[in-house]
This record gives sequence, structure tokens and C-alpha cells, in this order.
Amino acid sequence: MNAELVFVGTELLLGEILNTNAQYLSQQLSLLGVDVYHQQVVGDNAARLRAVLTQALGRADLVIACGGLGPTDDDITREVAAEVAGRALKLDEGLLRGLEAWFATRGRKMTENNRRQCMVPEGAKVLPNDRGTAPGLIIPAPGGKEIVLLPGPPGELQPMFARHVVPYLTARNGGRPMRLVTRTLRFVGIGESALADGLKDLLAGQTDPTIAPYAKTAEVHLRLATRAADQAEGLARIAPVEAEIRARFGRFLYGTDDEDLAAAVGRLLADRGLTLATAESCTGGLVAKRITDVAGSSAYFRMGFVTYASEAKERFLGVPADLIAAHGVVSEPVALAMAQGALERAGADVAVAITGVAGPGGGTPETPVGTVCFGLAARGGAEDGRGAGALPGGAWTERLWLHGDREGVRERAAVHALAMVRRYLTGQLG
Amino acid sequence: MNAELVFVGTELLLGEILNTNAQYLSQQLSLLGVDVYHQQVVGDNAARLRAVLTQALGRADLVIACGGLGPTDDDITREVAAEVAGRALKLDEGLLRGLEAWFATRGRKMTENNRRQCMVPEGAKVLPNDRGTAPGLIIPAPGGKEIVLLPGPPGELQPMFARHVVPYLTARNGGRPMRLVTRTLRFVGIGESALADGLKDLLAGQTDPTIAPYAKTAEVHLRLATRAADQAEGLARIAPVEAEIRARFGRFLYGTDDEDLAAAVGRLLADRGLTLATAESCTGGLVAKRITDVAGSSAYFRMGFVTYASEAKERFLGVPADLIAAHGVVSEPVALAMAQGALERAGADVAVAITGVAGPGGGTPETPVGTVCFGLAARGGAEDGRGAGALPGGAWTERLWLHGDREGVRERAAVHALAMVRRYLTGQLG
Repeated sequence: MNAELVFVGTELLLGEILNTNAQYLSQQLSLLGVDVYHQQVVGDNAARLRAVLTQALGRADLVIACGGLGPTDDDITREVAAEVAGRALKLDEGLLRGLEAWFATRGRKMTENNRRQCMVPEGAKVLPNDRGTAPGLIIPAPGGKEIVLLPGPPGELQPMFARHVVPYLTARNGGRPMRLVTRTLRFVGIGESALADGLKDLLAGQTDPTIAPYAKTAEVHLRLATRAADQAEGLARIAPVEAEIRARFGRFLYGTDDEDLAAAVGRLLADRGLTLATAESCTGGLVAKRITDVAGSSAYFRMGFVTYASEAKERFLGVPADLIAAHGVVSEPVALAMAQGALERAGADVAVAITGVAGPGGGTPETPVGTVCFGLAARGGAEDGRGAGALPGGAWTERLWLHGDREGVRERAAVHALAMVRRYLTGQLG
Repeated sequence: MNAELVFVGTELLLGEILNTNAQYLSQQLSLLGVDVYHQQVVGDNAARLRAVLTQALGRADLVIACGGLGPTDDDITREVAAEVAGRALKLDEGLLRGLEAWFATRGRKMTENNRRQCMVPEGAKVLPNDRGTAPGLIIPAPGGKEIVLLPGPPGELQPMFARHVVPYLTARNGGRPMRLVTRTLRFVGIGESALADGLKDLLAGQTDPTIAPYAKTAEVHLRLATRAADQAEGLARIAPVEAEIRARFGRFLYGTDDEDLAAAVGRLLADRGLTLATAESCTGGLVAKRITDVAGSSAYFRMGFVTYASEAKERFLGVPADLIAAHGVVSEPVALAMAQGALERAGADVAVAITGVAGPGGGTPETPVGTVCFGLAARGGAEDGRGAGALPGGAWTERLWLHGDREGVRERAAVHALAMVRRYLTGQLG
């Protein structure tokens, strides 16, 4: 089965919104084994939409059109799709009563315009919208083809696709979709080219599973993929390749699939029964924010100090003023004093500190924009969680020159700080 | 002039990457007054790409194709575009020498494959790539049309478009593009429907400038737009409409155009010579991160406390343990004590505190997920910066029930905390 995606909305053509629906639907269809050869974007214009839908229906089994199902006059997708599929629209009394009830429970009066959202092409299947007023539709078209209409807001489109379109497509395919099974290996502390170089024999010889490297901000992901009848069969085919990659680069591999770096660090802390404190200058709370993105992080996250000003570093972390005067605020001794101050004052087991120049201003010849110093202090004594003995106490510093704009430097610095904590917790520091 | 955008890459069809180039180019072309009626995405397949480019060239003055200019075998855009435009490819000796030098300075050897990037269609203009090895091309096509080829990575595409394509398009249009002049008014503390209701006469009667409301996370933006010969003429047409909107809703209007809420709050603090501290629980550093997103925020941001655990609230902010026991950690008294503790300990003029249940766990019947309490403490005495007298000292609390998932609750809470600081600084609190 193959599908063509059509996105309807002048706001997309003007660049007012980012088309995240394109990525979401492409990913989902890929997982279902449905091929997509074309995506199109067209504005709220009936003649152009008619031409686009007609072309799409001519070359794909399934056309999925998103957006333009609202109640206002520029929402024309329902009418044009019905016309292209050759189906007359009729008022669906059940939908109308549901919509009237929806407005009534919110104490609002339904307008005449909303009735348009209750018009259904003959023979079409209605997809309930749990998050809004516009239902989706699956409209039969000549030649056994179909046009699926979905609402434009991602918060409505995604649950509707997952709950109603996926089961429909699975059933249409005899209940046995050929799934694309994937496994993502996530690395930090190694660049894409070094990783690719160390795996070049595997990358050159790849057929099944395929191996694709992706460079992320200060991380590299490897995606292993294969087509299989189900998840277990696919993972069994992926397992030996994953094992080989782990044997070569396991120390940089922090997590798999959806586990991000903050979650992986949190898991390591929780496994070892340790607590963490952060002391941030140039990242301004970003590391604490990443750590607390993870639900349940209060179990191991003790305290975050955002000491952006020098005086705050002295006052709240006990960094000596003469240390700052002697080495500069962006220096390894200051980073270390920040980490030690955070460790002591928060009563944590591990503390990481960051001080740097994120730019655009503030650079000097000695510490240009992008210079970031890191400090890590640890009490030590805890078991490493892998039965390899106790983690050492101590203090470590590092200095990096990070590229990118202000946001880029801050993002990379936050990743490096988390990676440094990971290296400590896995016995790779000192 | 109108343009059609074509994005080339199987990774887009698989949903592996988000098509941010589509939004960037659409926005830029809209600002230049170039209409875009269609966007297409196609994979690395010569036959399909040929068909897409031929169709695009048939209906648009200008086709901009992005991606597929790299050195590997699946990079076919250059060859297919030259064929569609009817131009033979020739090796450009100047490009070749440049590329050899690029590799030499990096101590790397150029591969035979890279020579493909030096092939130029006859009569085409070469666009230098300041960030990578693939040059862009403007290829003349029959009927006075053109195909512009740009590299896929946004870090290469964006500077190439801004530096080389924009001047070319401006010159092509006689140096006088009809610009779309826009003005964005940014509101916080009022919903989209309340704003639209209060402006319904303006929204109903709009012709020039047009007025479009956009709901953002806990904010609403109004975009006023008109076409004009230059910025000054456009803004003069927008000014009276903006004045009328300000007269009605000025107290919710925190900033214009690109100034986000954290920058607006920073500007108010700097104007008044005041400093800020933050004390965050459920937002985990997000408010501090937002404030320090703004370059120069060290002038007014004194300290951020990320006290995620109850014990940290007691230890670092002096919140009494019996207050937490009596009211619960998510309560207005605790939020207030956090703000007062941050104010005193940081020696700041204003402090804002947040404590809430972001979920997914942690909710109770009394404080369900989404419950967030805010506290604001201020020393008072500073002039309000508008000549309206001194700002009062004091303490304020608020409690909200925010919807959304963990990330949504945290985002909305951060916006509300910043908005609360803004209300204090503009004399709207207490």
C-alpha cells in the first residue's frame, strides 16, 4: 500500500506554522509499512486543492489530507474532497446532536457555521475527534481508493490517527501490516565521523538491518531498521548487529530508542541510590530543566543553583572572590569551586557545574565566545551499580570550545554536563 | 512573481527529519512578496523528481529545489534539474580548485565523488556555500523561468538564501520587491476568544491591513499585515489599527514582533533598575532558562533556585517545614514563602516562585495534576519607569489549574510566572 500526503492551509505556504504533521504522519506510515512517495502543500483555494487531490488520487492508493475541516468559510477540504471522490454531502444528524451537546456543556451557543462540520460524504466513515469539534472522515473513492481527512491541529490529528486510522489501515491490510521495526542506539562523547569510521565495515556491508547514523546536537544516533511481521522478529534480526556495535562503542552508548540523556543519567543515579545537584552559570537553568523534564526526578535531583552573576556564585556556592579575580569567572578552578559548593550546600552525592561564555557578547582573547568550563565533584563510596565496586570520590574539571550561536553553545554545554555525570557514574571519569 | 518549493529527500518521506526549510523559505518569500501556491516533497528517485520539477516549472515562475546536492550516489538533484531545464553539465574548474583547497586545509583527501559537486549546468549562476561543500545553483530554464538549487542542511541553506538568493531576486524584480510588511502584537493574560471578541468589529471589517490572531502556548499573537513598497509605508498604514488595539487591550500587550515575554520582562526590569530572583519547583529551572535566553540578562537576573524537593525548599529558601505540613507543598502559602525566601536570600528586588503538580503522577483530589501555585514578593519603592510613581512592596499569590501534559503544564506555568512579574512591574498587581 502507498499513500500520498496533502497538507491544506495558506498559513503553511506563508511559513506561519511549521508542518510537524508531515513528519508525524510520515513516521507513522513508515512504521506501518505504508510507502509515501509524495507530499504536497496547497493553500485554502478550491481550484488548486481540487487539482492536487485529483493528482494524488491518480497515483496513490490512499490520500491523507490534513487541515481545512474547521467551521469557517476558508475551510474547504471536506467539500472539495467529497467532490473529487464523487460523493454527495449529507447532514449527519448524530454528529449534529453531538456537536450541539459539546457546545451546550461549555455554555456556548453553536453557530450556523458549525453545521458544516456535520456534513458527511455518502458512504464515508466518521472518525471521532476527542480534542475538538471537527470529525475526521474516510471517504471511499473510485478504484478502491480512499481519501482520509484529518484536522490540522497536531493535538487533534495525532490522537485521531493513532486511535482511529491505524486500526483501520491494519484491518484494510488483512490485519498483518509489514512493520518497519527500528532500534535507535544513542551515543554521546563521540562524533559522527569517528563513529562511522569505526563501523565502516558494518556500514558498507549493511543490507538487513540497515544502519543509518544521525548527527544530533552534541550526540549521534544510529538507527537500525528492518521489515518484519512483528516487533519480536525484527528485534531478533537487529540483535547481533547491535551487539557488535556495543562491543566496539558501548562506552559512548548512553541509551536506546526514546530514552534521552537526562533520563539515562536519572536512571543511573536512581540505580546507584545517589543524588545530584547542579550549579549553572551560562546554561542558566537548562541542565536542571532537562533533568526535571523526567517525571520522578525528585527522587534523585536535590537542588539546582542558577548563579548567573559572579556575586551569586560567591554568595550561594561559596566560590572565593579572589579565585574569580585570579582565574576569571570562566575558568576550571571556578567551575570546580562551584561544583564543590553545590555538593556541600545541597548535601548531594554528585554535583556538576558549568561556567562559560555563551555569547554573543562577553568574549575575550583568552576566553572567546564558546569557551565553557565544567566541574564535577563527588563524595564517592557508592557502589557503581554494575557490581564493579565503589565509585571514587573526587573532583574533575574540563574545558571545551563549543561552536554555534548562544542557543547552540548552551545546548551543547548542557549535553556535555550531563555526559560528564554519566561518565562519572559509569566509572569513566578519572 | 510566484515560486514553487520542491524538497528532495527520502528522509523527509520517512519522517526522519522535520522540514524546517519549508517554513524558512515560505516566510522569506512571503516577506519578499513572492507568492507560493505549492510545496512538494519527493524522494531520491530520478523519475519522480523529474516529474515533480517538470510540473513545478510548468506552473511557477521560479522553482526552488532543496536537498540532494551532496557527493553521494543518491544525490541526484543537480543532474535531474539540469536535464529538466535542458542544460548540459560541465565541470567548473574554479569550483574544483576551491573544493580541493577546502579539503587540503582540513588535511583530508578529496574523493572522486566530490567532483560531482563541481558540475555546473551551462549558463547557470553558482551560489557560494560558506558552510559546506555543495554550492547552490540558479539554472535558467525555458520561458524566462529559473530553477534555484539549494543544499538541504538548514545551516547551509539559510545563509546561502539570505546572502545570495535574496539579492538576486530583488535585482530580478527591478530592485523594488512589493514587500509584505507585518507587525506582530504579543499578548499574555488574555485568551484568543476574549481578544477576538473584543476586536470583532475590527476583525470583521479588516481589508488592509489584515489582522490574524494566533494562539500560542498561554499567549495570543495578533499579526497585522499589509503590502507596501517599503517598511515605512507599510508601518504607517498599520499604525492607526495598532493604536486602536492598544487602546482596548494595551494592558495585556507585552511586546511586539520578535520580543518574547522573557525579553520584555528583562527590558522592564532594566528600565526600572530592578533585579529578579526565581524559586522553581515544578518548572525545574525553565523560568531561569527563559530569562537567561536573553543576552545581557546578568544585569538584572540575580539568582535562580531550583528547589525540586521539599527539603531543598526548607534548606535553601527557609520555607518552614510546618508550613509545608499544614498546607501541602503545592499551596499558595508555600509559594509565597518560597518567593520571600528567594527575595531575602538573593538580595533581589522582585522574586517569583512556582510550586505545582506537572504530572503525570503526584496528583491528589485536592491538588490534581495541573494545579500550580505562584508567589511574588517585592521590596517596592522603585519608580515604575513610566513616571507613574513608585512600585509598591508586598506579596501576592495565585493558584491556577493548567491543562496539558507534563511539558504543557510546565510551559504554561513558566509563561504565567513571567506574566506575573510583568504585571507587577507595570502596576497591574495589587
